[in-house]
Amino acid sequence: MFVVLEILILLLVAKGAGELVERAGYPSLIGEITAGLILGPSLLGLIELGEVLKVFADLGLIVLLFLSGIETDLKNLASAEKAGTVTAICGVVIPFVLGFGLGYLTGMDTIPSVFLGIALAITSIGISVRALVDEHALSTPIGSIIITSAVIDDLIGILLLAALSAFALGGGLTSVAGTAILALIFITFMVTGGRRILGGLYAKVRRHASHESAYSAGLIMAFASAAASQIMGLHLAIGAFFAGLALSDRIRPDRTIEGSLSDLGLGFLVPFFFASIGLSLTLSVDTFQNPLLIPLVLVAFSGKIIGGYIGSRHFLPDNRSALLVGLGLSPRGEVALVVATMALSTGIITNDLFTMVTLMVIATALVAPLFLRIGFKALRRSGDAV
Amino acid sequence: MFVVLEILILLLVAKGAGELVERAGYPSLIGEITAGLILGPSLLGLIELGEVLKVFADLGLIVLLFLSGIETDLKNLASAEKAGTVTAICGVVIPFVLGFGLGYLTGMDTIPSVFLGIALAITSIGISVRALVDEHALSTPIGSIIITSAVIDDLIGILLLAALSAFALGGGLTSVAGTAILALIFITFMVTGGRRILGGLYAKVRRHASHESAYSAGLIMAFASAAASQIMGLHLAIGAFFAGLALSDRIRPDRTIEGSLSDLGLGFLVPFFFASIGLSLTLSVDTFQNPLLIPLVLVAFSGKIIGGYIGSRHFLPDNRSALLVGLGLSPRGEVALVVATMALSTGIITNDLFTMVTLMVIATALVAPLFLRIGFKALRRSGDAV
Repeated sequence: MFVVLEILILLLVAKGAGELVERAGYPSLIGEITAGLILGPSLLGLIELGEVLKVFADLGLIVLLFLSGIETDLKNLASAEKAGTVTAICGVVIPFVLGFGLGYLTGMDTIPSVFLGIALAITSIGISVRALVDEHALSTPIGSIIITSAVIDDLIGILLLAALSAFALGGGLTSVAGTAILALIFITFMVTGGRRILGGLYAKVRRHASHESAYSAGLIMAFASAAASQIMGLHLAIGAFFAGLALSDRIRPDRTIEGSLSDLGLGFLVPFFFASIGLSLTLSVDTFQNPLLIPLVLVAFSGKIIGGYIGSRHFLPDNRSALLVGLGLSPRGEVALVVATMALSTGIITNDLFTMVTLMVIATALVAPLFLRIGFKALRRSGDAV
Repeated sequence: MFVVLEILILLLVAKGAGELVERAGYPSLIGEITAGLILGPSLLGLIELGEVLKVFADLGLIVLLFLSGIETDLKNLASAEKAGTVTAICGVVIPFVLGFGLGYLTGMDTIPSVFLGIALAITSIGISVRALVDEHALSTPIGSIIITSAVIDDLIGILLLAALSAFALGGGLTSVAGTAILALIFITFMVTGGRRILGGLYAKVRRHASHESAYSAGLIMAFASAAASQIMGLHLAIGAFFAGLALSDRIRPDRTIEGSLSDLGLGFLVPFFFASIGLSLTLSVDTFQNPLLIPLVLVAFSGKIIGGYIGSRHFLPDNRSALLVGLGLSPRGEVALVVATMALSTGIITNDLFTMVTLMVIATALVAPLFLRIGFKALRRSGDAV
């Protein structure tokens, strides 16, 4: 009866908290998760993650990845400088190995350990950009290596998610190997023929129909691609991302459509995804006494710092700059949370591990910008060129 | 599990059918209702109106009435010419009396009869405007009387809906009389102090926060006002409309926000409202043999034609022009369907009567534009000034 009231309260608190946190210089997703924590079983117990809210969270996730796909410019990636590419690869491989190792050493099975590696591998580009803008360091060599490699990193993350999703969900229509092959075919199709077909169809609607029909067409393609990837045994998020990538050249330069879709995402649906993460956590004193928490956060930082350092050292004048690159790659965000949500919903990780990964994301997203600020100040004080 | 697939199919078919119907010169809601009829129990039985789709339909209704409120310009209404006002009043009173009479004579109770009167009283402004544009008659005396009185008519419709809603839902927190008084206080508040408070709050967010936060703020106010009216024992739709009216001066001139909200409505949520009407109908051969159907459609036309004629005759040169005004006021649309949905959901009318009213809306919306076209042609052929 009063589902609208639930939607209202969740949107109000999540969006309000997100806005406040963003003003303080942190990513809004921290505010949105916190809103879920406050309204959910951890604190007030006011809102339960029922069927309707789960659908809203799914739609938020779809629109979030659709928008990420739209913002991704494959041409930029193809021409990415060597420094960014090398750094991205080191910055993914080393955290992955450390994460996998941590899982394995603490007695997890192979698949949860692989999950932990993937969850640690992906930098959150939004948080890095924001921190670099605040430090006026976006166009410095350090800044440009961080950005390029965070973008590549994001794409690697999606591919790793597709792989994990094939392993976790495979066996629906086909075997795991079958799903992996389907995933490969699907992704190849979406960046070649699918790009042309969807792009052409969208362009036709945009030219001949009303503004809102073009908007609908974009959404319908995102939902259809998400549903297709789910039917194939992949996660919804994969299809949504590649639908965005396929429409990227059409929608990115089209200010009014891009603006409307981004309002729909950031102003309405996406907060439900992040708030739902908060709603599905049940924090208690025990949570913070979990022996995995501190090692996980330490590995999260050291993996990216070491990986970023090794990858970029050759291209930068001194050790300190290379360490700053690693620090700049440390914040984790939406992709890690998408990976964790998928892993939880398919039963490959426990609620406990999900909680730990969410806390790791919050910790890196909160702490990395602070350290970056200190690091850039030190670098400037020492008189080196930033 | 596959709710996203249901949402996808419904959006695709409803929006596609709506676009096709609109290109043929008819209101898109006919296509959207038909999509529901095709996918629902009447034909394919593919989609059931479950909890999630009901919430989407509710949100569509809220956004539809929020947008109507935003588009309503109280200043224009206040300065409306006498001709439009007189025509509006006659064009509401006569169909209301005839509808009430029809209900009463066919043995209905008082409240369903009042409902029938209200459902027949409200012109659909969208359909009239579209038909007038097609006939290049928007700025003729006939056109301007039709538009002004359809707009006033719409507002009277909302007030009648509020009254009916107080009668139908009253008794939640208070008695019927209490709800009616609450409704009056609520509406008065929303067009005076509420307008200032909500408007001021919205303007603050718009100035100081991100674009999507202003968009969220608008939506949150619509949801909050809808929820408030529901808690008071009124229908959701009332609150949504008055929230739009309160923010009207702020959002109407603000192209990017207005565009985003209208994309969200027309391109995403509203089709779920109209499709849900189709989904909740179970048409069969019996439906069309219902003895109420033909009289209802006849009363729908004759009520508006007589009312429009009497109201406008004094201001126009000849009988034919005044009859055309009546014909121009004949199409019914979203408000009649909102009234019917509310009446059905609160149990004051039967499923059968709901079906009859929906068919009446479809019939008037399909036939009136045709007759208008013929009428304007005849008027032009006779050499009279249109």
